[in-house]
Amino acid sequence: MKIAKAEVIVCCPGRNFVTLKLTTDDGVTGLGDATLNGRELSVASYLKDHICPLLVGRDAHQIEDTWQYLYRGAYWRRGPVTMSAIGAVDMALWDIKGKVANLPVYQLLGGASREHVIAYSHATGRDIPETLDAFAKYKEKGFKAIRVQCGIPGMKSVYGVSKGGAYEPATKGWPEEQSWSSEKYLNYVPQLFAAVREKFGFDIHLLHDVHHRLTPIEAARLGKEIEDYHLFWMEDPTPAENQEGFRLIRQHTTTPIAVGEVLNTIWDCKQLIEEQLIDYIRMTITHGGGLTHMRRVADFAAMYQVRTGCHGPSDLSPVCMGAALHFDLWAPNFGMQEYMGYHEQTMEVFKCAWSFNDGFMHPSDTPGLGVEIDEKLAAKYPYEPAYLPVARLEDGTLWNW
Amino acid sequence: MKIAKAEVIVCCPGRNFVTLKLTTDDGVTGLGDATLNGRELSVASYLKDHICPLLVGRDAHQIEDTWQYLYRGAYWRRGPVTMSAIGAVDMALWDIKGKVANLPVYQLLGGASREHVIAYSHATGRDIPETLDAFAKYKEKGFKAIRVQCGIPGMKSVYGVSKGGAYEPATKGWPEEQSWSSEKYLNYVPQLFAAVREKFGFDIHLLHDVHHRLTPIEAARLGKEIEDYHLFWMEDPTPAENQEGFRLIRQHTTTPIAVGEVLNTIWDCKQLIEEQLIDYIRMTITHGGGLTHMRRVADFAAMYQVRTGCHGPSDLSPVCMGAALHFDLWAPNFGMQEYMGYHEQTMEVFKCAWSFNDGFMHPSDTPGLGVEIDEKLAAKYPYEPAYLPVARLEDGTLWNW
Amino acid sequence: MKIAKAEVIVCCPGRNFVTLKLTTDDGVTGLGDATLNGRELSVASYLKDHICPLLVGRDAHQIEDTWQYLYRGAYWRRGPVTMSAIGAVDMALWDIKGKVANLPVYQLLGGASREHVIAYSHATGRDIPETLDAFAKYKEKGFKAIRVQCGIPGMKSVYGVSKGGAYEPATKGWPEEQSWSSEKYLNYVPQLFAAVREKFGFDIHLLHDVHHRLTPIEAARLGKEIEDYHLFWMEDPTPAENQEGFRLIRQHTTTPIAVGEVLNTIWDCKQLIEEQLIDYIRMTITHGGGLTHMRRVADFAAMYQVRTGCHGPSDLSPVCMGAALHFDLWAPNFGMQEYMGYHEQTMEVFKCAWSFNDGFMHPSDTPGLGVEIDEKLAAKYPYEPAYLPVARLEDGTLWNW
Amino acid sequence: MKIAKAEVIVCCPGRNFVTLKLTTDDGVTGLGDATLNGRELSVASYLKDHICPLLVGRDAHQIEDTWQYLYRGAYWRRGPVTMSAIGAVDMALWDIKGKVANLPVYQLLGGASREHVIAYSHATGRDIPETLDAFAKYKEKGFKAIRVQCGIPGMKSVYGVSKGGAYEPATKGWPEEQSWSSEKYLNYVPQLFAAVREKFGFDIHLLHDVHHRLTPIEAARLGKEIEDYHLFWMEDPTPAENQEGFRLIRQHTTTPIAVGEVLNTIWDCKQLIEEQLIDYIRMTITHGGGLTHMRRVADFAAMYQVRTGCHGPSDLSPVCMGAALHFDLWAPNFGMQEYMGYHEQTMEVFKCAWSFNDGFMHPSDTPGLGVEIDEKLAAKYPYEPAYLPVARLEDGTLWNW
Repeated sequence: MKIAKAEVIVCCPGRNFVTLKLTTDDGVTGLGDATLNGRELSVASYLKDHICPLLVGRDAHQIEDTWQYLYRGAYWRRGPVTMSAIGAVDMALWDIKGKVANLPVYQLLGGASREHVIAYSHATGRDIPETLDAFAKYKEKGFKAIRVQCGIPGMKSVYGVSKGGAYEPATKGWPEEQSWSSEKYLNYVPQLFAAVREKFGFDIHLLHDVHHRLTPIEAARLGKEIEDYHLFWMEDPTPAENQEGFRLIRQHTTTPIAVGEVLNTIWDCKQLIEEQLIDYIRMTITHGGGLTHMRRVADFAAMYQVRTGCHGPSDLSPVCMGAALHFDLWAPNFGMQEYMGYHEQTMEVFKCAWSFNDGFMHPSDTPGLGVEIDEKLAAKYPYEPAYLPVARLEDGTLWNW
Repeated sequence: MKIAKAEVIVCCPGRNFVTLKLTTDDGVTGLGDATLNGRELSVASYLKDHICPLLVGRDAHQIEDTWQYLYRGAYWRRGPVTMSAIGAVDMALWDIKGKVANLPVYQLLGGASREHVIAYSHATGRDIPETLDAFAKYKEKGFKAIRVQCGIPGMKSVYGVSKGGAYEPATKGWPEEQSWSSEKYLNYVPQLFAAVREKFGFDIHLLHDVHHRLTPIEAARLGKEIEDYHLFWMEDPTPAENQEGFRLIRQHTTTPIAVGEVLNTIWDCKQLIEEQLIDYIRMTITHGGGLTHMRRVADFAAMYQVRTGCHGPSDLSPVCMGAALHFDLWAPNFGMQEYMGYHEQTMEVFKCAWSFNDGFMHPSDTPGLGVEIDEKLAAKYPYEPAYLPVARLEDGTLWNW
Repeated sequence: MKIAKAEVIVCCPGRNFVTLKLTTDDGVTGLGDATLNGRELSVASYLKDHICPLLVGRDAHQIEDTWQYLYRGAYWRRGPVTMSAIGAVDMALWDIKGKVANLPVYQLLGGASREHVIAYSHATGRDIPETLDAFAKYKEKGFKAIRVQCGIPGMKSVYGVSKGGAYEPATKGWPEEQSWSSEKYLNYVPQLFAAVREKFGFDIHLLHDVHHRLTPIEAARLGKEIEDYHLFWMEDPTPAENQEGFRLIRQHTTTPIAVGEVLNTIWDCKQLIEEQLIDYIRMTITHGGGLTHMRRVADFAAMYQVRTGCHGPSDLSPVCMGAALHFDLWAPNFGMQEYMGYHEQTMEVFKCAWSFNDGFMHPSDTPGLGVEIDEKLAAKYPYEPAYLPVARLEDGTLWNW
Repeated sequence: MKIAKAEVIVCCPGRNFVTLKLTTDDGVTGLGDATLNGRELSVASYLKDHICPLLVGRDAHQIEDTWQYLYRGAYWRRGPVTMSAIGAVDMALWDIKGKVANLPVYQLLGGASREHVIAYSHATGRDIPETLDAFAKYKEKGFKAIRVQCGIPGMKSVYGVSKGGAYEPATKGWPEEQSWSSEKYLNYVPQLFAAVREKFGFDIHLLHDVHHRLTPIEAARLGKEIEDYHLFWMEDPTPAENQEGFRLIRQHTTTPIAVGEVLNTIWDCKQLIEEQLIDYIRMTITHGGGLTHMRRVADFAAMYQVRTGCHGPSDLSPVCMGAALHFDLWAPNFGMQEYMGYHEQTMEVFKCAWSFNDGFMHPSDTPGLGVEIDEKLAAKYPYEPAYLPVARLEDGTLWNW
């Protein structure tokens, strides 16, 4: 079974997505998501100009060999562009293998380890009352786990807080520059968790994303101050390039920590995991090099009782969400799945067998990944340049968004 | 697809084997090897009396859940009896899944990473000339890698040295007690490697098994003294319960080290691997808890450039050999496969699709594992108690065989 | 003095027990407990089919050589089945040696280091008030140390909590599947300790068994939150295969930690002890390879001021309890003995010289271990398959029971 | 001074190059090299589609802010594509700043620390005699440091060995698949160094590139065996994702080690440097994120007496070579510069002020970087797809090229 065609589809049904479509010589197709928010065309080029020509003629069954071929064979390894491109190829090949075996991909991974997959969504508001309202709304939708972010007095815009309508951090044409004050945030945000716990109690999972904004000692302070609110996790408290930087946070607080949505390989989180500096690893299938690499990450994490917590924003396509759900359903150390939902147009272009119901998700039993693309419809939504925002401290210093 | 029947077959076609046979409600069968040389009936009881009743009615597709159910659910974890029993169940379930998917198991693991699998066999002799003759014979059979062991002057019997006929360490009825002198061995054995290299050159892989007989400092001495002969590996230089014991060997010699045929879980070799104290991990599918656990071991090892070197003696059944070959063909960090061959009777009872040809092995493309058992014929060879030998120092001290 | 007979007795007086009985050529008998709850017959087979034939004819005095012979000579080492079988042989040989010397076994170990041995029992209830009642009852019985477990709102069954009658976790025929929520447990259980301390003060030792249910960061949170209640120990806060996992717990809390009832050799707890990650080592005589191995564990633990805390549930027979009490009376670093009590039928079959009185136990001065078995009565209680429960998270994920 | 234009020039004068050209509103131009061999168009897209629009209007003087804007502001960090793109922008901005200040860039870095920069080139041959001839030729050209690579008996092609004409590893259209045997290489290559030292003595620097082909233990063996030949460095002995993997090599040999041509950020080599696992860091300006990032790498390396050894193959453009020479002339801990030379066509398109003379190089005192591009000529050489080779072991296993 040879790969006969390898095509890249770039479309913007609500937001930009890069999709790889592989077709075998006997007509089986597989899809992979290669979307890298704000750098989409670079991955598209990596695939179209450099990888696709190499795929045609290869045995579609040799997923491991193809992964090694693209990772080692590129000579230049790692990084978000490279790993997203490899991830898309890997996803598409598992999609094909599932269809050939007439089994959903989770069965190839070892079968279901649970009935369904818990997912959290994002409750945000310009202030605490508005966030509590949003929280109530998500609770009504059935979510058993909700992330909260809210506006901070004295700051014009805050990560994770919508300006009206669905939250979409990327802006068309040009990156928004947002102002940030760690001091204002640190002095205010604990009240948000206090308010949530007071109003909604402790029977629901409460999450929060610091989004890389703090230094390690600030993150340690925050984690320590909010211990009584028992967060499910405190996400990305500080940038993770220097993995040992988390030791400082870790020695001060038992607030669980989730890291990894910007990481791409097991090497980016090896020390975080083996020194138990985190509790949840948030890499997901696209940016994490596909199912072949992500199961290695999950298995390594399991040795240290670190659980998975796949990144799941609307800037990874429904194909990635499908792959993540197969992965989640299998992974013995699954912890949590992020689910922001998708634009209506996105869901029209991507036909998904996976489902959300009363706080839980399931990849479905459709053979393969269970996601298909309507290429004709996709063609109606051409690529529109868009960027994630950039953060600056109040004095203009470029900061981590 | 439910498991409808779970049967344990104990037979002795040439030597004892314990085989688990699972049958699904739609008639698909899967085989697993559960042979633990010299402790066979204990594993057979573990399966028959405690595990088989739990398997009936379970979903045959849920391999991961079943693995966790048997490992965590037993409450009492690890060890050769437990892990061999779990290994047999896991192997049988992958056999079934392969048949259901109509794919050889290596395709479910991610496909072939190589054309075929290099295998080594055992050249032994009562003295060096006899060993050289045996070496020549195996070379003619096409082996590209040969393990050498030879008699040591002043010692009546030596591990790995046949007393005539095929080498079979186990003896019927009662364990043989062998006498051991590390001093005599250390003073003599380097000459064996010198003789092999002088006669056969360096274009063939040369292996040797110390079989746990040395202390760390003795092993360091040996490894250092034989560096010029460039062994492919020096196996089990010292017992590995105290994994950090290998640090001493490692700081003195670059002779590559293989360990693991007596280990059963990733925990037994975690430090050996993460501190790069070994180069090859020799656990195999039966004693290593099945394919589900062994791929975790292999993936962990790969992070440290440790390669696999599956144990492959005649006391693991052809079912285990089949599973190992699927594993070998897939594992990106495969290094070497041991292949001692089997008694003729063994090969009549176990119908194997796998093959050996000119120094290399292949699991075949038969769906599943590609090994079946002739139960009627098996029934003609009832279990016969047999034991591996025991070693004593010359003063009678119980030593490591 | 040769071993003339080696017999295995499997009986179910209240619950299943596997007992090894050795008889010397001059008619001295020794008993060893080999019970492995839920995997009894596998150990019985290990003994009967593989070890007993080797024991006949051996010098009953050579306990050390026999231990090495069974441990090293098996080739396949460690694990619960192997070590329980070896433990039973070792116990029986010490029983014989004591009888031959006309001395209680503790005298052979070095004599008594204390008058008697403090023991704790289990106060459990479906809710806090019921647990407090149970606590009061055990206090009245004289216990100076009491373990508390209680039902958790929203969970149907909880480890350690009886459904009426004496607590026996194992169920006949099939393992019970219990649902578990770490969140509900963590949010509730501190109140139990608060209630106990408020009602009964701090003059009694308070223990609690987490029973492997938490991840390291969750265990760290629990240990930190309950520090003011000054637990004697927090048992098995997280699974211990990855021993370094306890570092995280340890850096956050001074709540003492006990681990080890599922461990079998010194290697399973070496890092836990040498890094002072625990305060009490809970291995006991049967699963810990007998007195010969356990005194090594105790001596190693003493180097790090880690004390013993022998596992003592009703699923280890009164023979093991007898051996443990001799061990406890001797061990300079003895800490605590668990004592759940036994079914009436159990105590009729096993005639015990050891005693409980006002919170303390004593092995008695009867030569040997001081426990005998009524084989005729035992024969009236044939083996009945029974299993420990299995735990699943609320979404069905297999968890640690 | 604003950036008014940002253009990407892709051309193939001899081989493919990606060049960024920035023009300020007052007409000053700056060049940056963004060539990533075999993945050129992906970097070109990263620049053209995602970065260039963001550059227009920015203050050309704010190099630091722009670097942080592109690194942190992309959200997705690290990796060869991202860092090469950032590197090109950074290089071009330093070129502009130099021109504006009317100073060569090395003066802005802190001025020259030495007269000129030692450079090594590559002597290769199909066998040892041919390599010795090539060595003599390079010696005559004035080189004081020469890297040697030679064909290995039994291997069809070897890294670094030309098949006739100038050595260019990339092939047009499709990656060449090369077969590799570590055993053959290890058994043969020490003779090459012996022959060089015997013929040319020890008064010239001898270098060798293992090119990631060995495992750590094999690399340790090689380093140990060739110590007497006193190599200047042994390059890339094993892949460096697992940086601690170099500990094993390091404990066995004092042969100096150079690593880094495939690394992209300080995080990729932090452990290598702080544990003194290497002696030379080989990242260069393009792939290492520009001068802004590379001076940080050099400064960190200096703390541990690790020196620089910039990668300098013909697949980085003369613009990168110019930037590297400014960097080399300044860096107090400069060690060595690689210089392979360029195709004639390349040197026609890129007008270089930098020079090579009698074994040493100099960036020149031309303001800025001292390299300009002839865009009209460049346009005559359109992009031609080409790939670096891929290596496979003899059994087909994908290996590190």
